[in-house]
Amino acid sequence: MGKDDVKLLTMWASPFCMRVKVALAEKEIAYEEIQENDLLTCKSDLLLTSNPVHKQVPVLFHDDKPICESTNIITYLDEAFPAKPLFPECAYGRSRARFWADYIDRKVHPAGRAIWSTKEKDEVEAAKNNFLEIMKYLDGTLGDKDYFNGDKFGFVDILLIGLTTWFPAYEKYGDFKLEDHYPKLAAWITRSWARETVSESLTSPEKITNIVIMLRKMHGLE
Amino acid sequence: MGKDDVKLLTMWASPFCMRVKVALAEKEIAYEEIQENDLLTCKSDLLLTSNPVHKQVPVLFHDDKPICESTNIITYLDEAFPAKPLFPECAYGRSRARFWADYIDRKVHPAGRAIWSTKEKDEVEAAKNNFLEIMKYLDGTLGDKDYFNGDKFGFVDILLIGLTTWFPAYEKYGDFKLEDHYPKLAAWITRSWARETVSESLTSPEKITNIVIMLRKMHGLE
Repeated sequence: MGKDDVKLLTMWASPFCMRVKVALAEKEIAYEEIQENDLLTCKSDLLLTSNPVHKQVPVLFHDDKPICESTNIITYLDEAFPAKPLFPECAYGRSRARFWADYIDRKVHPAGRAIWSTKEKDEVEAAKNNFLEIMKYLDGTLGDKDYFNGDKFGFVDILLIGLTTWFPAYEKYGDFKLEDHYPKLAAWITRSWARETVSESLTSPEKITNIVIMLRKMHGLE
Repeated sequence: MGKDDVKLLTMWASPFCMRVKVALAEKEIAYEEIQENDLLTCKSDLLLTSNPVHKQVPVLFHDDKPICESTNIITYLDEAFPAKPLFPECAYGRSRARFWADYIDRKVHPAGRAIWSTKEKDEVEAAKNNFLEIMKYLDGTLGDKDYFNGDKFGFVDILLIGLTTWFPAYEKYGDFKLEDHYPKLAAWITRSWARETVSESLTSPEKITNIVIMLRKMHGLE
């Protein structure tokens, strides 16, 4: 594996980049990180040419071939680097992991954004309730297990843990505590953050909350 | 493979069900089809218990184990029944197929719906232009190839071909012809429909257009 050339084009506040970094760390794949400086005003030529459809980070380069979209990248990494697999072994287990991956990708981040991107009290309340309803199913499928697939931190855990960096901002503006509603899910967050592969790959929630405060100011919400 | 018990819970107008039927036909997997009678007013207990999160068809049952979400089902079929593979063999090719699958799943059907679900002329015009912009990228990645992955009808073709049953309704209400804009993509539709696995699995566009007329009447648009 030492001869593979792996680079990751990232932006530090993106939870989708963070989850790829967790996957690379879990699989012990060495890589070079290239930071996009300022996604809001000026996208690099490297980003525009390697992801012309979505123009979004992260982009992984494996021996100079670009792979886009974080969930797709992590699936690719698990196929191209078979050691330390992230997916369950059996086809049915893999289908369950993809099902929850899709659920997380479609719902969690937009639902969280809806909480902090308004100052209308009833909109905040509705957004908070919607977010908690989405979390209910994740709490249910986690159940009493340590991780989503059992006792091994894997694909679904990696996809969700990157997004949790934004959760304290949702709690702040939605005026709730996740652990009051779903203590098992909250314990999963603490348990996952205790892993070095996670804590060293994720941006601190404090820095993310400061980004949210800045974004709210930009949009006249504070 | 003869001993596998495969059932598919479907609804005849759903393009997401149709694509699974194409995949089953391409892979020559025998199955029993179970029709949901009327998704709009009454969902069956089988659907509600086997897909409690989304409550949507299609649901595949393999030896009684349910698998939900059409793209996930087709990926599962390709893993559980390795003969006649739908995915490219190499990890990079597979990542490209998943990238376009995600693009199709997120964009095509909602963009088409926006064309026929309004009677405001400027909204129709904007929706048509958006739909054509989405098709532009698909036309570009197809290029001069017979199928999306080359000369073999595969995963991306299957995901898109199911959705094309609704295209004549988009053309009717958007007042355009896809082939005037993207002749190669239109030729791909004709080429794909000439396959028995496709034509015998898909509901005729005429029946779909009649559904759209009915839906527009229900919403006071005709």
